[in-house]
Amino acid sequence: MILTNAHIATLQSDDSFGLIGRGSIAVRGETIAWVGNANDMPALYRDDVAHDVGGRLVTPALIDCHTHVVFGGNRAREFELRLNGASYEDVARTGGGIISTVKATRAASEDALLIDALTRVDAMIAEGVTLIEVKSGYGLDIDTELKMLRVARAITKARPIDVRTTFLGAHAVPADYAGRADAYIDEVCIPALRAAHVDGLVDAVDGFCEGIAFDPAQITRVFDVAVELGLPVKLHAEQLSNIGGTKLAAQYRALSADHVEYATEADAAALGVSGTVAVILPGAFYTLREVQAPPIQSFRDHKVPMALATDCNPGSSPLTSPLLTMNMACTLFRMTPLEALLGMTVHAAKALGEPNRGRIRTGACADINIWNAAHPAELSYRIGFNPLYSRIFKGSL
Amino acid sequence: MILTNAHIATLQSDDSFGLIGRGSIAVRGETIAWVGNANDMPALYRDDVAHDVGGRLVTPALIDCHTHVVFGGNRAREFELRLNGASYEDVARTGGGIISTVKATRAASEDALLIDALTRVDAMIAEGVTLIEVKSGYGLDIDTELKMLRVARAITKARPIDVRTTFLGAHAVPADYAGRADAYIDEVCIPALRAAHVDGLVDAVDGFCEGIAFDPAQITRVFDVAVELGLPVKLHAEQLSNIGGTKLAAQYRALSADHVEYATEADAAALGVSGTVAVILPGAFYTLREVQAPPIQSFRDHKVPMALATDCNPGSSPLTSPLLTMNMACTLFRMTPLEALLGMTVHAAKALGEPNRGRIRTGACADINIWNAAHPAELSYRIGFNPLYSRIFKGSL
Ligand SMILES: [Zn+2]
Ligand SMILES: [Zn+2]
Repeated sequence: MILTNAHIATLQSDDSFGLIGRGSIAVRGETIAWVGNANDMPALYRDDVAHDVGGRLVTPALIDCHTHVVFGGNRAREFELRLNGASYEDVARTGGGIISTVKATRAASEDALLIDALTRVDAMIAEGVTLIEVKSGYGLDIDTELKMLRVARAITKARPIDVRTTFLGAHAVPADYAGRADAYIDEVCIPALRAAHVDGLVDAVDGFCEGIAFDPAQITRVFDVAVELGLPVKLHAEQLSNIGGTKLAAQYRALSADHVEYATEADAAALGVSGTVAVILPGAFYTLREVQAPPIQSFRDHKVPMALATDCNPGSSPLTSPLLTMNMACTLFRMTPLEALLGMTVHAAKALGEPNRGRIRTGACADINIWNAAHPAELSYRIGFNPLYSRIFKGSL
Repeated sequence: MILTNAHIATLQSDDSFGLIGRGSIAVRGETIAWVGNANDMPALYRDDVAHDVGGRLVTPALIDCHTHVVFGGNRAREFELRLNGASYEDVARTGGGIISTVKATRAASEDALLIDALTRVDAMIAEGVTLIEVKSGYGLDIDTELKMLRVARAITKARPIDVRTTFLGAHAVPADYAGRADAYIDEVCIPALRAAHVDGLVDAVDGFCEGIAFDPAQITRVFDVAVELGLPVKLHAEQLSNIGGTKLAAQYRALSADHVEYATEADAAALGVSGTVAVILPGAFYTLREVQAPPIQSFRDHKVPMALATDCNPGSSPLTSPLLTMNMACTLFRMTPLEALLGMTVHAAKALGEPNRGRIRTGACADINIWNAAHPAELSYRIGFNPLYSRIFKGSL
């Protein structure tokens, strides 16, 4: 297959959109075989089936590298209670908060969890997403953590999208371990990780390093098991305060440090040295009405790749739109449209350890979007609008 | 037609969703003939064609009462320049700002303007909108103001949606009248209004009352012509500062005062007395990174109906999602999910002088949405997600 008459943002480097005004792309199987000016196309591709894209904008497909799309129930009722003046205690008393999601997730069947997750995945596919990361972390017991990961794996069988799974047993301390976080790590989190790994359900290991969750010493014990199992790590770090999560992530050469609103210049420097991606999650910032923005300029200064993700979850970011995420990154954090697109493509791929995705170049995975747009800045500029014309997943329209 | 097995938010009053757990709705022609508990349905409707909605949430269809969906070009390039550090002067020097939209709108054919507007209208229809308001105001010359209003009227012929047109000649002072706003009002704005009215193109008259646009005395002259022509008025008031626009709107018993971030308690009291709707526009607040929120509590205290709208426009609110607008109103302004839904239905109808729309009750227009949701709070809770299952416009699915 070849795409012709395309205005291509190749993203071949990080310092420009890499625009080709009248370009063509040759796809062979699941791979981009050639990209360049239409006039320069080698004769060898000239007889392939051609799709004239009518001068439309073509970009790498989008990648959502931080989601919690598998969960039971929703938190609309809690959202409403809060807006009607209920305090956090009131909400807790009526069974709200993360515990309500844990309860609903434990109670739901795998089929029900999958059907519910697919409504969110479908919204992402509709905006041109071809690869998502999905975390566990609403089970907080061994069976349910594994159940969530099986559902995450099942998404790829139900829809044309790739999934990378992340074990997030260290997400919260469940009620029955209140005040005994260390026992939870030993008795539930680490055994669940080992069991999930045996079942082939884990692509990476994550934790929530925060005063209300786990401290760096507890995360270290989980990370050490990940290292032993040969699994890469990542971390929810410095979202609400700075307790050293980002430096810990850098020390473990983590794939990513995520949220990082309270990261410092020194944290950014550490990420730059370790080659760790900073995953920026404006949906949670927006929903929580946070005022501390992540240190974008420090990340730039230290050449830390910045990815963007929806953080799709029922509590702090019930967001399913990668395009809106890009607009929020620009509007709230003053990232540029180029940074936003890199963040949803090649830097998101890097945060998932996928060097072969997120750019349009020879040899890359043929995940490609065609947009009803003239310039890539339009993807970040519009709010709540989906200009996707067509999506190519692994070489198939 | 009857809808059965419906979880209905009737919005029959302003103090609750007016939920009916297992309800039915009878539609005859374009009108809601009956609504109530399934068991109470009169025999007379029992033979109508029944649609079982499977227990889904049913609400009045959505209404977007403040849009500028007709315009030429887009401002993505300007958005990008600003985020790359360009000053307002830099942007102006490269032809940016509202002037660039005026130039593109003047240059575009009616067909091109319509095709472009329909991309935005289609996004609104997809979220269950059945009535929008559309303003002129990017022509700023007589011919182009009329052209915009003709395009607005043409939307209803191209799509299953109703349109109310608003003349907004007093939107900005064009370059050729720089420093001569009064001459612009006399020589362009008022003659354009009279000409548009003769052609039957005007349902209401609006203005932008602001330091950078027109002062209350200039708006008064436009409003006096509206009164003479028997047209209702509305006003962009107190968006960036307080110069008395809200009080002026109240004095003219305007349909609505829009934006109103800088309105005071006294302004709210004046709106309460005049029965004027406060139209809240969180998309512009978000895009401009405004910090002064509208006085929501004062509006509540003075029983001012609050409507919500996208303000869809290419500069300060390139937003086409009424559902995201509802979420923003809750998140940014702490409005409740009930207020958000009232704001996109019955209060939006009131802002357009349409008492017969926006509620599900006997005799109302049969504009109805069916949602993949269990509770109306879900419509505000999710971010960038569209749970619409089906939309009924004037009695037709
Ligand atoms: Zn997360
Ligand atoms: Zn406006």
